[in-house]
Amino acid sequence: MEEENRQIRLQLNQLQGTAGQPADGGNYGNAAWGASADTGPDDVENTAEERANHTECPRSPTILKCEVSQNQKCILAQLCVLAVFVWLHCLVIGFKFGIVKSAVSGVCLVCPLSSVQLIHVACVCAGHNASRDVVTLVKSILFHRRNPLHFHFITDAVANQILSSLFQSWMVPSVQVSFYDADELKSEVSWIPNKHYSGIYGLMKLTLTKALPSDLTKVIVLDTDITFATDIAELWAIFRKFTDKQVIGLVENQSDWYLGNLWKNHKPWPALGRGFNTGVILLYLERLRRIGWEQMWRLTAERELMSMLSTSLADQDIFNAFIKQNPVLVHQLPCFWNVQLSDHTRSEQCYTEVSDLKVIHWNSPKKLRVKNKHVEFFRNLYLTFLEYDGNLLRRELFGCPSVISPGIEILQGALEELDEDDQCYDFRRERITVHRVHLYFLQYEYTPAGDDTDVTLVAQLSMDRLQMLEAICKHWEGPISLALYMSDAEAQQFLRYAQASEVLKNRKNVGYHIVYKEGQFYPVNLVRNVALRNANTPYVFLADVDFLPMYGLYDYLRKSVVQLDMAHTKKALVVPAFETLRYRLSFPKSKAELLSMLDMGTLYTFRYHVWTKGHAPTNYAKWRTATTPYKVEWEADFEPYVVVKRDCPEYDQRFVGFGWNKVSHIMELDAQEYDLMVLPNAFMIHMPHAPSFDISKFRSSPGYRYCLQTLKEEFHQDLSRKYGAAALKYLTAQRNI
Amino acid sequence: MEEENRQIRLQLNQLQGTAGQPADGGNYGNAAWGASADTGPDDVENTAEERANHTECPRSPTILKCEVSQNQKCILAQLCVLAVFVWLHCLVIGFKFGIVKSAVSGVCLVCPLSSVQLIHVACVCAGHNASRDVVTLVKSILFHRRNPLHFHFITDAVANQILSSLFQSWMVPSVQVSFYDADELKSEVSWIPNKHYSGIYGLMKLTLTKALPSDLTKVIVLDTDITFATDIAELWAIFRKFTDKQVIGLVENQSDWYLGNLWKNHKPWPALGRGFNTGVILLYLERLRRIGWEQMWRLTAERELMSMLSTSLADQDIFNAFIKQNPVLVHQLPCFWNVQLSDHTRSEQCYTEVSDLKVIHWNSPKKLRVKNKHVEFFRNLYLTFLEYDGNLLRRELFGCPSVISPGIEILQGALEELDEDDQCYDFRRERITVHRVHLYFLQYEYTPAGDDTDVTLVAQLSMDRLQMLEAICKHWEGPISLALYMSDAEAQQFLRYAQASEVLKNRKNVGYHIVYKEGQFYPVNLVRNVALRNANTPYVFLADVDFLPMYGLYDYLRKSVVQLDMAHTKKALVVPAFETLRYRLSFPKSKAELLSMLDMGTLYTFRYHVWTKGHAPTNYAKWRTATTPYKVEWEADFEPYVVVKRDCPEYDQRFVGFGWNKVSHIMELDAQEYDLMVLPNAFMIHMPHAPSFDISKFRSSPGYRYCLQTLKEEFHQDLSRKYGAAALKYLTAQRNI
Repeated sequence: MEEENRQIRLQLNQLQGTAGQPADGGNYGNAAWGASADTGPDDVENTAEERANHTECPRSPTILKCEVSQNQKCILAQLCVLAVFVWLHCLVIGFKFGIVKSAVSGVCLVCPLSSVQLIHVACVCAGHNASRDVVTLVKSILFHRRNPLHFHFITDAVANQILSSLFQSWMVPSVQVSFYDADELKSEVSWIPNKHYSGIYGLMKLTLTKALPSDLTKVIVLDTDITFATDIAELWAIFRKFTDKQVIGLVENQSDWYLGNLWKNHKPWPALGRGFNTGVILLYLERLRRIGWEQMWRLTAERELMSMLSTSLADQDIFNAFIKQNPVLVHQLPCFWNVQLSDHTRSEQCYTEVSDLKVIHWNSPKKLRVKNKHVEFFRNLYLTFLEYDGNLLRRELFGCPSVISPGIEILQGALEELDEDDQCYDFRRERITVHRVHLYFLQYEYTPAGDDTDVTLVAQLSMDRLQMLEAICKHWEGPISLALYMSDAEAQQFLRYAQASEVLKNRKNVGYHIVYKEGQFYPVNLVRNVALRNANTPYVFLADVDFLPMYGLYDYLRKSVVQLDMAHTKKALVVPAFETLRYRLSFPKSKAELLSMLDMGTLYTFRYHVWTKGHAPTNYAKWRTATTPYKVEWEADFEPYVVVKRDCPEYDQRFVGFGWNKVSHIMELDAQEYDLMVLPNAFMIHMPHAPSFDISKFRSSPGYRYCLQTLKEEFHQDLSRKYGAAALKYLTAQRNI
Repeated sequence: MEEENRQIRLQLNQLQGTAGQPADGGNYGNAAWGASADTGPDDVENTAEERANHTECPRSPTILKCEVSQNQKCILAQLCVLAVFVWLHCLVIGFKFGIVKSAVSGVCLVCPLSSVQLIHVACVCAGHNASRDVVTLVKSILFHRRNPLHFHFITDAVANQILSSLFQSWMVPSVQVSFYDADELKSEVSWIPNKHYSGIYGLMKLTLTKALPSDLTKVIVLDTDITFATDIAELWAIFRKFTDKQVIGLVENQSDWYLGNLWKNHKPWPALGRGFNTGVILLYLERLRRIGWEQMWRLTAERELMSMLSTSLADQDIFNAFIKQNPVLVHQLPCFWNVQLSDHTRSEQCYTEVSDLKVIHWNSPKKLRVKNKHVEFFRNLYLTFLEYDGNLLRRELFGCPSVISPGIEILQGALEELDEDDQCYDFRRERITVHRVHLYFLQYEYTPAGDDTDVTLVAQLSMDRLQMLEAICKHWEGPISLALYMSDAEAQQFLRYAQASEVLKNRKNVGYHIVYKEGQFYPVNLVRNVALRNANTPYVFLADVDFLPMYGLYDYLRKSVVQLDMAHTKKALVVPAFETLRYRLSFPKSKAELLSMLDMGTLYTFRYHVWTKGHAPTNYAKWRTATTPYKVEWEADFEPYVVVKRDCPEYDQRFVGFGWNKVSHIMELDAQEYDLMVLPNAFMIHMPHAPSFDISKFRSSPGYRYCLQTLKEEFHQDLSRKYGAAALKYLTAQRNI
């Protein structure tokens, strides 16, 4: 009985992914899972019981110093006294990152045995929508996981851009990410006619033995419409239950499709009984390679296609036909590992028997609107992760540091330089905070104009300015790059708003980039830079979201770009800014109309009442009568809205929240000797809105003012360093105020 | 080996709170946990292994029809075809509720064995802040739980009001809640001098054998600053491990306090070693009563107080002194059941050994700011639940229906009446949606004025109007009742905002009531009613949050209440409404100033440009020169801001979002023969803001307009039914438009 109890405890701990009892605690040392691909054949044997006795993992009942190799000791020792987060990532195609957090006390953490094993997950992901969906899958996995993970994404160019930048900025500890080019795999499957809505990407799961690294032995393959309700390590552990012959783990299909009785003359591909669903696959890559999988599935597909002509359910038809011929190769998984929620499935039989749902599969084109008597329950589980704050998943595993990269030292250095007693510590900390970024959150299509004159409107916003988007789209037909500063929940709210808006739905040339909220500041220049960096035209119009451009501004700017030879000169074209204090403005159709409204007092020059200096150098008096572009000189605090080449300097990210965020940018343009040219027939009008919280924070806080002043001075010093003596004029200009 | 595997699986399933294998599935029938207090001595014996063979729970490998007693069969059968949520709650002091969801297919769900056991949790909770904190604890428990729960709250009047209305509106299935009056227990412990910050409530855990029902055998007692990271059933299961003598389960204290060496002459109460922490207690009530606990702890306390004079750590000192004398009575729990995060604790030793943290205890006055090397990890866990959408926890357990109450039929009837094909189904569904309500989210203090003339400003808002609050507070010094329509995450954002605002921090007579978001509509009248219902003065000023009252309005209204004999007449005092289209308004100090601004065009009468009718009956021309209140007649679409008695009719909740929400209310006041009296020296001014999403939805949607029209007509019919032929005038007025 004692022994039995011991076994039960052991198994329990294994299930929970932890060493639950002091006696099972151990120290893994370091770096085992940091290898580029798999932990090798060793991990096949490294079972729960065996690992408890693993020689490389000495047990310990109390805290252990990390046992590291001699050449890493000094680095670790250094880390242990710093108590900082340090990040590493190297940006090769298959990039990876991890986190090493040191301990205040100088004692590193003990790695629990269970977190030793690196789990590999593969996913085929193409396009904007799948890239958004897969994030919810990833969140549900990260939420429950206790092991290091390696995600392998087979992506098209769109998904690659979105997911690589997302993971790079997400910086989840003990998560590696690799990308594989789906386009290169297309030729492997493009010969298969396929009627399934997933298209050619639906077939690519067949090619994983080829696509993934040849030394990767096992992988869990998931569709993007999967939600995990448990630790993925439990699923990974099932590989151990495979017999020697078994190469692929699958859950039975829960619809009647393969029974072939859904309608008259319904003739599905051959399958064992109801067949298997390929939304969740345990793929024993090593064995598949050994038995010649790549040839085998092709032969199967070719033979069946002679009579079937095309696949109906993409890869799933071929997997099933293959299994029908080779039933000994399949390991059937318990149905709760893939509870399929398409209409008319038998999934109920699965989860009414086992209330412990582990994986939910939204495999209906209806997704959340699927009819299922427990859809409310499943929907809640899904929504939990959909709106879950991804920053919270940055928590580290309890484990020893793994790989140390040179990238660490840079961030470490920056953090080291910060003085916690500095009155402006929070400002400085914000500057080096890495915000998670999800580029192209919605569908985006843009074909570059052939003449190299195209201009993108660039702006940033948060939730409270959402209602401006429709109006801006009506005033500007060209491409737009918008960065949205939001929480995960707000991003979903935005998604619903955009999908419900006729105006936004019909505009595909707007790139929406989510910068996820973190910390107490509004990092306005960081957000602006995300929008700026992701403009895809040679020129950008650096605007603000509370302005409406005059009708026709887009065309006028493109003409001006040519007229003023922007391609071969260094110019910033100024679009004069006005404002209305009234909501119900009848927007002026022409410069003449604008001037008369100005005379009537319906319009004002921008910030005329409160901050005249911001736009005074535009010289509105001259503009009234100007018919050709005219040059103006930089003056202190000038912050016009300008059109510049896309490769202009970025905004200085030290300025967060209200104050000096645009001023510093214009100053740097001037330092780089951009000519400021005012456009005689362009204008934009600021629309009224309630003051933002940030402004009130600024106005009421002497600390904020003090820090802004300090940051300004440091910015001046940096300008001088960068641009030499000429930049001293900014300092002088500043002092004269 | 086979047998061992069976045992392991059994134990695993037990741990996961589920019957994981088909062979273990079973049907519990019904109603077992619905009893008022405990499941009785039987559940003591009802262990994992035993329950698997429980004769009352026949096993079944497939779906079972619910086996119910003859007299319930018909009700269940009825439920099974309706597919509706049905709720029950009876509102006695110790009220309870549950949910019964039927199945579309006519087949009821099988109850997994593990969800049979009802778990009891007790918590002492007093005041606004603890009532807010305890919600996060409850969320963390509900998130992981798979069992029916019964919460027992020992509360003061404040916590009782907040938590009873919260749980009543939360309607979590399979959750019962009982309240016990802390004031009645005060005399039991008030004789003990106590220096701990928790005050007298900190001592009340000692009285639970007396406070809780005498047939309750076991209970888990928790502090409000606890976060669960696992299923509470695992903790409950430890009762089984108690020896016959053990009566109380505790985790060792993780600070050095009881070692008595923290400073010179530090003399703590006696304890075994480091003593025990009472943040998490397994209390075997039945046995405690049997051994005479009530006398025993008193004797211990009296004896120790002779030398100690007072307790330092409240109940914990007395528990420890008691245990020191009776060590055989304590069952020591593994430390991960109460990981204590106060500074300088040994908690690290606990969780570095076991990475599987189960319960975190924020037992430092610093709470989240506590210094701990893994505070980031713990904080993330805490924040997960802090901002977690509580609506998602309304998910049912997989289980058979339990108790059927008459309350079911009412809601069932309402839902039955709805026609899913009705074009306005969504509107009608919203009307019967129950929104979770957290009253008095922040500290609230109000002493009723003695003269019975007090007036509360009543308004509702969402996140985008938050910046109005400070201004309103500056314009209105009287009590305010605000209902805020927010998500859980937004409520936390609001909390941070309010705590950082000097203006809001210093105002205690503002009641903030959170109505949690759900669904696609803005249930404006439901939210208004929450604010109205929770005003604590005889009169209410029904305002909107985007208006600023004139300075001195509060005093003027109180005088008018007397002058117009509001106490003995049925009057609605109209406060004339104006608007500015300018942000930077210099607010008029007097009626004279207002009139001159009106003449200058700086101000307008409210909605003069777009919806004159809404306020035309106020008769602004007459008001200009009026020096005494004057009566005006109701007209169609009149929607003035009025002062009425608190017992005025509520707003009609069928009107959601934009349109007719105030109009219908004024109409009903008129139907009830309120005299509309315009106040000659009162005014309020609407401040500009961006249009809300709802308005744009309304403007752009013909469907919305159609449904609003339909609802209006139904409202008219209801008015006629209620007020007879006289109410026909509203219909006529409407048709004439």
